[in-house]
Amino acid sequence: MVHKIIIAFVILTPLVLSSVINNNVEKCNLSYSIKKEIESYKGFATKIINSVNNQFKHSTYNHLDDFINAYGNRIAGSKNLENAIDYILKKSDLYNLENVHGEEVQVPHWVRGEESATLLYPRYKDLPMLGLGSSVGTPPEGIRAKAVVVSSFDELHKLSKTVKGKIVVYNEKYRNYGDTVVYRRDGASIASQYGAVATLIGSITPFSLATAHTGWQQYAENITKIPTACITKEDANLLHGMYKRRKPIYIEIKMEARTLTSATSRNIVAEIVGNKLPDKVVVISGHIDSWDVGEGAIDDGVGAFVSWNALAILKALGLTARRTIRTILWTAEEEGYIGAFAYAKAHQNETRNLDFVMESDTGTFSPLGFTYSGLPEVGCILQEILNLFTELNITNVQSPIDGGPDISKWVSDGVPGAALFGNLERYFWYHHSAADTMVAVQPDELDQATALWAATSFIIANLSFDMPKHLTPYQFKENDV
Amino acid sequence: MVHKIIIAFVILTPLVLSSVINNNVEKCNLSYSIKKEIESYKGFATKIINSVNNQFKHSTYNHLDDFINAYGNRIAGSKNLENAIDYILKKSDLYNLENVHGEEVQVPHWVRGEESATLLYPRYKDLPMLGLGSSVGTPPEGIRAKAVVVSSFDELHKLSKTVKGKIVVYNEKYRNYGDTVVYRRDGASIASQYGAVATLIGSITPFSLATAHTGWQQYAENITKIPTACITKEDANLLHGMYKRRKPIYIEIKMEARTLTSATSRNIVAEIVGNKLPDKVVVISGHIDSWDVGEGAIDDGVGAFVSWNALAILKALGLTARRTIRTILWTAEEEGYIGAFAYAKAHQNETRNLDFVMESDTGTFSPLGFTYSGLPEVGCILQEILNLFTELNITNVQSPIDGGPDISKWVSDGVPGAALFGNLERYFWYHHSAADTMVAVQPDELDQATALWAATSFIIANLSFDMPKHLTPYQFKENDV
Repeated sequence: MVHKIIIAFVILTPLVLSSVINNNVEKCNLSYSIKKEIESYKGFATKIINSVNNQFKHSTYNHLDDFINAYGNRIAGSKNLENAIDYILKKSDLYNLENVHGEEVQVPHWVRGEESATLLYPRYKDLPMLGLGSSVGTPPEGIRAKAVVVSSFDELHKLSKTVKGKIVVYNEKYRNYGDTVVYRRDGASIASQYGAVATLIGSITPFSLATAHTGWQQYAENITKIPTACITKEDANLLHGMYKRRKPIYIEIKMEARTLTSATSRNIVAEIVGNKLPDKVVVISGHIDSWDVGEGAIDDGVGAFVSWNALAILKALGLTARRTIRTILWTAEEEGYIGAFAYAKAHQNETRNLDFVMESDTGTFSPLGFTYSGLPEVGCILQEILNLFTELNITNVQSPIDGGPDISKWVSDGVPGAALFGNLERYFWYHHSAADTMVAVQPDELDQATALWAATSFIIANLSFDMPKHLTPYQFKENDV
Repeated sequence: MVHKIIIAFVILTPLVLSSVINNNVEKCNLSYSIKKEIESYKGFATKIINSVNNQFKHSTYNHLDDFINAYGNRIAGSKNLENAIDYILKKSDLYNLENVHGEEVQVPHWVRGEESATLLYPRYKDLPMLGLGSSVGTPPEGIRAKAVVVSSFDELHKLSKTVKGKIVVYNEKYRNYGDTVVYRRDGASIASQYGAVATLIGSITPFSLATAHTGWQQYAENITKIPTACITKEDANLLHGMYKRRKPIYIEIKMEARTLTSATSRNIVAEIVGNKLPDKVVVISGHIDSWDVGEGAIDDGVGAFVSWNALAILKALGLTARRTIRTILWTAEEEGYIGAFAYAKAHQNETRNLDFVMESDTGTFSPLGFTYSGLPEVGCILQEILNLFTELNITNVQSPIDGGPDISKWVSDGVPGAALFGNLERYFWYHHSAADTMVAVQPDELDQATALWAATSFIIANLSFDMPKHLTPYQFKENDV
C-alpha cells in the first residue's frame, strides 16, 4: 500500500493541489513570548522587502532571465542540464555563497526523439502532441489504428470489449490537477489492459490555446507497455465529436521515445552557515531540471531562482542567522523527485537537524502565502510570520498538505515544511508545455516571493527555539495526492 | 490615396478595432412615432429571445459544431471550402430558405506547404511558425542567415545599415490589433527595403500560450518579395533577449508557400423575401472561409452561423417582414474581402435598395451590442432597438466605425450598417491560430447573438420607414484602419 502510494506520489507534480487547499489556521495559542519574538522581526521583514524592492529590484527575474535565455529547458539526463548546473555552481561561488557544491545522483534518461500524430480519417489533420515521460516509442513505421474516444475511465470500462487493437483517446474534463492527471498517469496502463495499442490524452490543463502538455506517466506492472502522448484539448474535443457522430476514426502515431541508461546529475547546494547552531538547518528549495519543452521558466525556474536569490540577497546584506540556511536546487524532480529522494536518503542521519524545509514548485503567480505541514503550532508560527508581510498581501497559511513534491519525503518523516502557493489555475495553463517561458513570469511577483523567502527563512533560522516537530511517519492518505 | 487606403482596408481583418470603439450614441431626437413603433416590438423581441432559448436552444452551436466537425478550416482556393459551401447550400434548401444560391467569384489561391523555422545558434530550438498569406516561399534548401531583432520599425530604421542579408525578427509589443498588425502587414516590405532576406514577426495577439498566428500580409510595390512568417510571442521575446545580450543569432527558414492561379469560389445567398417591399433588403452576414489553421470556428464560423441560423429560425417561425432579409456568407474574406467586394460590384445597381447591412466577424464573446456606421439617426434607431434587449444585457451602440470588413464597401458608399461587437481581447487570443476551434465557442453566447441578429434584422426589415442614409462616399481616414 505504501508502495502504491509512493508511486502515486512520484507521478504527481506538484503535490500541492488546489482541491486539497482549503483549511486556514485556526485556534492558535502561541505563548506570549513566541508572539513577541516574531513581532520583533517586523522591522527586519520591512528591511528585506525594501531591499528587494530597491537595491535588488527585479534581480531574481534578471538572474532567471539570463539563465533561461542561455540554457532553455533542462531535462534529466541531458548535457544541457549539467551545463546549467555548472553555471549556477559557478555563480554561487561568485556571490560568495558558502559550501557550494553539487551532490551526484543517478537519474532516468528518457528521450523524446521525433514524434507525430496524424488524423487520417474522416479528414486529414496533424494532431500536435507531446509524448509522455517514460513512454515507449512506436515501431519506426508508426502505429495506424482505429480510435475509440472516451471521456472517462468509466466509459472505457464499458467499452472494454471494443478496445483491442485500437488507439484509445481520452477527452477527459479538467476538474483540478489532482483529479485529472490520473488520465495522464494511468491512461496507457488502463487502456493496455484491454488490448489498446496506444493512447492519446487531452492535455492536463484548465485552459488551452491549442497547446500540448507533457508530463510523467507510469506503466503498471504486468501490462504491455504502449506508446502514450498528450494531444491538445481542442483536438481531443474534435475527435470526440467525430466519435459521437459514429464516424470511423483512423490515427497514425510515430514516436521515437526511449529510455536510455541512467545518467549522473547533481543536486545543487549552497549555504549561509549559522553562527550559533550551524548543524541545524532551514532549507529553501526548488528544482533545477525541467521538461524538455518550453523553457522551464515557471516549472521550476522561478522556484529555483527565488530560493537561490533569497540566499544571495541575505549574503549580500551580510545577514547570518543562528542556524544554517541552505538552498537546494533539486535535480530530476520531473521524473519523480529523484534528486530529492536521493538527497534525503544520503542525509538521513541529519534529518533530525532539519529545523524547517521550504519549497517553491507551483509558480509565483500572485503569491498568497504558505501551505504547510507539521504540527498545528507550525501553522500558527507561520501565520505570525506572515503577519509581518501584510504590506505584500501575502498573509495566507493553509494546511494540511504535503508541502511540496521534493520535500515530501522529509515531510512524511515529520519534518515541518511549507510551500509557496499562489494562483494555481494560471500555473497549470503553462505547466509542462511550450508556453512555459519568461513571458509567463512577472518580475514584481518574483520580488514578492523572494522577499518572503529570504525573510521567512532567516527569521525561522534565527528564532530562539526550534520549530515544533514530531519525527514519526506522516500518515499518507490516498486522496492527498 | 484612395488606393492606398483600400489596400490598408484589405489587409486589416477585421476593421473593428478596439482602439476606435469609444463613442456612445448621444443626443437622440427620434420622433415620437418612430420610438413608439420600435417600442411596439418589445413583445416580438421577447418572443424571439424565448424561442432561441427554448425551441431553438443551442441550435446555432449545434449546426456550427456539425459543420466544423466535418469540414474544419476552409481557406480560399481549397476544395474543402467548396465542399463546405455545398453543404450549406444543401442545408439551406432543407430548411426551406428562399432564393438559395451560390454566386461565383474568383479568389486567390495561396498554399502554405511544409514550413519550419529553426534557431541554429546560440542554441538549437525549433521555432513554431506560420507563414503569412501571400508570402513567397524559400528556396528548397531554405534560408540560413544571421538575425537582427527589433521591437519596432523605428529601431529597424536605425539599424538599417546592418540588415542586408539578414533575417529581421520583430518582437513588437501588442497594443491593440490595429496598431500592431502593421508589423504583420508591412514587416516584410519594410525589411526588404534594407536588404533583409526574410522576416519573422511575433504573432499579433494580446496573449499567447506559445501559439503562432497567421494572417494576410502585403508586399509593397517595387520591393524584393521575401518570405515572411509569424513565430510565437514567446520565441520573439527569447530571440530579442539573445540579441540584447549581443549573441550572434542564426536561423534557418524553410517555406514551400506559393500562390497558385486563382480559383473559383462562391458567396452563399439565402433569403426570406419581403411581403411588401421585396426589392428592399436587410443583409445579415459573416464569412464562410477561414485561415488554413485551427478550425475556423470563431473566425468566422460563429458569424456565418449566427447569420444563417437567424434566418432559419425566422423561417421556421413563419415570420415574413415587409422587406427581404438576406443572409450572405462571404467567401475569401481573409484574402481581402474578395467575395464581398465582388458581390458589391456585381450588384452595384441594387445598392440603393440596401436598407441596412449587418456583419458579425469579431466573434461572439460576451456580445455587448452594435458598432454602427451611417447617419446619427441610425445609431439612435439601433439604440431604441437594443432597448428591447435589456434582458440579454446587449444594450451598447458604438460609433463611428466602419461596420465590419465585408460590408465596408457598402458602408463606404453610404449604406447604413452595423457589426456585432463583444469582448475583442478574447477574440484575438484565438484569431488566425490553431486555437480557433469549437472549444472557444460558448453555446449560450451564440444564442444571444442569434436572438439579437434575428430580431434586429426582422424589426428593421419590417419598419414603416427606410433606414436613413446618404449615398455619398464615406470619408475614409487613415487612422480608421
